[in-house]
Amino acid sequence: MNQNTEFTRVEILRKSEVSAALIDSATDFYRRGWLLGTSGNLSAVLRKDPFCIAITGSGVDKGHLREDQIIEVDETLNVVMGTYKPSSESAIHVTLEKKLGCMAVFHTHSVWSTILSRLYAPEGGFEIKGYEMLKGLNNVNTHEHSEWFPVIENSQDMPGLAARVQVLLTNNPDIHCFLLSGHGLYTWGSTIEEARRHVEAIEFLLEVFAHSVSSFRKN
Amino acid sequence: MNQNTEFTRVEILRKSEVSAALIDSATDFYRRGWLLGTSGNLSAVLRKDPFCIAITGSGVDKGHLREDQIIEVDETLNVVMGTYKPSSESAIHVTLEKKLGCMAVFHTHSVWSTILSRLYAPEGGFEIKGYEMLKGLNNVNTHEHSEWFPVIENSQDMPGLAARVQVLLTNNPDIHCFLLSGHGLYTWGSTIEEARRHVEAIEFLLEVFAHSVSSFRKN
Amino acid sequence: MNQNTEFTRVEILRKSEVSAALIDSATDFYRRGWLLGTSGNLSAVLRKDPFCIAITGSGVDKGHLREDQIIEVDETLNVVMGTYKPSSESAIHVTLEKKLGCMAVFHTHSVWSTILSRLYAPEGGFEIKGYEMLKGLNNVNTHEHSEWFPVIENSQDMPGLAARVQVLLTNNPDIHCFLLSGHGLYTWGSTIEEARRHVEAIEFLLEVFAHSVSSFRKN
Amino acid sequence: MNQNTEFTRVEILRKSEVSAALIDSATDFYRRGWLLGTSGNLSAVLRKDPFCIAITGSGVDKGHLREDQIIEVDETLNVVMGTYKPSSESAIHVTLEKKLGCMAVFHTHSVWSTILSRLYAPEGGFEIKGYEMLKGLNNVNTHEHSEWFPVIENSQDMPGLAARVQVLLTNNPDIHCFLLSGHGLYTWGSTIEEARRHVEAIEFLLEVFAHSVSSFRKN
Repeated sequence: MNQNTEFTRVEILRKSEVSAALIDSATDFYRRGWLLGTSGNLSAVLRKDPFCIAITGSGVDKGHLREDQIIEVDETLNVVMGTYKPSSESAIHVTLEKKLGCMAVFHTHSVWSTILSRLYAPEGGFEIKGYEMLKGLNNVNTHEHSEWFPVIENSQDMPGLAARVQVLLTNNPDIHCFLLSGHGLYTWGSTIEEARRHVEAIEFLLEVFAHSVSSFRKN
Repeated sequence: MNQNTEFTRVEILRKSEVSAALIDSATDFYRRGWLLGTSGNLSAVLRKDPFCIAITGSGVDKGHLREDQIIEVDETLNVVMGTYKPSSESAIHVTLEKKLGCMAVFHTHSVWSTILSRLYAPEGGFEIKGYEMLKGLNNVNTHEHSEWFPVIENSQDMPGLAARVQVLLTNNPDIHCFLLSGHGLYTWGSTIEEARRHVEAIEFLLEVFAHSVSSFRKN
Repeated sequence: MNQNTEFTRVEILRKSEVSAALIDSATDFYRRGWLLGTSGNLSAVLRKDPFCIAITGSGVDKGHLREDQIIEVDETLNVVMGTYKPSSESAIHVTLEKKLGCMAVFHTHSVWSTILSRLYAPEGGFEIKGYEMLKGLNNVNTHEHSEWFPVIENSQDMPGLAARVQVLLTNNPDIHCFLLSGHGLYTWGSTIEEARRHVEAIEFLLEVFAHSVSSFRKN
Repeated sequence: MNQNTEFTRVEILRKSEVSAALIDSATDFYRRGWLLGTSGNLSAVLRKDPFCIAITGSGVDKGHLREDQIIEVDETLNVVMGTYKPSSESAIHVTLEKKLGCMAVFHTHSVWSTILSRLYAPEGGFEIKGYEMLKGLNNVNTHEHSEWFPVIENSQDMPGLAARVQVLLTNNPDIHCFLLSGHGLYTWGSTIEEARRHVEAIEFLLEVFAHSVSSFRKN
């Protein structure tokens, strides 16, 4: 129990610091068009035991995010603090944070993740290799790395979708993200900074890859 | 009469709050290139009885909108307050606000709404389905939703155009917006926030859709 | 003589007000990528008699423009006030301001004006019609308007180029702008605000037009 | 020795001024999407004798760069001041600054430099000519200039890569930049302002060139 308390103390990140970091990322992603129309959600683990995350409330404008719009949710998706409803997608956030032990999960809706996820849904994903930006992904040390971007069929059945995410993670332990078809990107990190770096590196790679597979080529 | 006064009290939104919300939306849309060259106009209902809306004055720069450039107009398009002229497009705003009972109408000019509206004018519109962002539209709860985006021929005859909009709304009670060919988007909401969310979600969908129907495809 | 003094008084715009308006436009155009790499120049007439304009100095960064970087130049391109050199392109500004009697000339370098000017240099220009945004051009009252965008071959011989601009204006009295091939856009206005509106409306039209004439089309 | 001290005094740029200029460039480039995911690095020479540069630390977020994240490094890549690690790419910065005697080296990762560098790696580079923006490059005085953009194969072997850069510079004394395949742009300047102007002018040219060689053409 004491050990547990010690552990908890180390893990606790102050809510206001976490909120400021989430608001900063949300504001920038919104400007880039990755969180339009109140889409997307960002979360970070506040405590591992008892498990508690900070997550953007359902339907809030990500370009004008306020601290009171970031609520605290436990592992059964009960709101521990805050007046906003949790997004139904909170189930995927908690699944990723519990399964991977990561400290932050960022879900964005960009034009290119939407287009590529629809285009490659039939193959279940696509591979990107040979780009320096791949080194923006955790533990990738060379541009010769080949990264698999899995695409999962979109669904409004959240428990079913979370279960499919569980299977995906078990079968693909080395992935850094996945896409929902026609929907967007989920990525994560051992810190909020790493999750943010992953979003930026992946969105860049998706835009480059989209041009490389499209009609764009030399005359 | 008393009941009417009660009703009015509930409906009254303070002009300064409404203006701040319109300026905030206009500034952001301008940055995204959706209100360039003084194009577009934004309005919100201030009172339903007697009917009065706040609307951006004719020809004002939407990137530097000031409160005094937002005028008050009644249902016959008379200026109740302010020194700017109402845009001739005010007729469409009032038509939508009276017919639908909505509280805000946003009209934007984006590159993709201009391109798609010209491309699909012969068919009278186009359908978008299967995208999560469709859930940004009021009462849409699944990406499996299929949304019809009607395209009306552009015209400088405003009473005639407003009459065609009336017919369109009667024949398509479930639409969330329409496009004028080679011109831009009209959408609305039960609040200013909802109208803003509609603009963002729809502009995102139009950009994704434009790529999906164009030469963009896998090699 | 008195009449002349009266006239002058009406025409004088305070340098600091003009500078603030030019800096505001430059900052915004730079953000949109229309004045990268110190390219482009903006000018406004301060006095008609004796003729004097305010113009951005040669080689200054348009994203960080300061009032001391906006110099005063007379009709023979002598610097009346300021320590920066006038751009060699000042000759075109003065030519336009003298010939047309306009009060501001804005010259921008955008990706689309560069691409389209190269593409249509062989034909000497291109026509855009049927877009509502054409109404952003002075005295255009309908989208049915057809606007000619002349393209002049680029040159480093400024007196020669200014002479060709003179001929162009004589032969095309109704144009609102012209393009230099592989170089960029010149437009003007009876006020700084009008010149700014012209830049925004024209850049929008060029982007839309570029897509409409390219490989972008329905499957 | 005295002469040397004189020389040094002239060359010394105050660290805080240099840091402010690097942060300003980094912030703007980040907004344009040229330094996403902590990618890229910017450096400037502080002293030529003994040689010392200021350079962005490894893995720092370029959109939120702080002065303490800009470290001082000597010619053997030892950190003279600061707590951050130098990027492994510091070797290329020092190579350029020693070989060319330039005062600043900027390395950016844009979508178009990544795409074009991959596309033209087999030919070892590509030529751009006929654009006015070429005059943004030092000592280029006409749009008729033809600029060679060399592409080097990417590598994680930094001493090997730096040696290849040495050879490239010897064989191509007139270039203003080079690209690493699938990686990004290196350019430089005799001042920080010139390096910044080069980045902006080159990125503009790459975007225009990419469209001109792709499927983009008249119907």
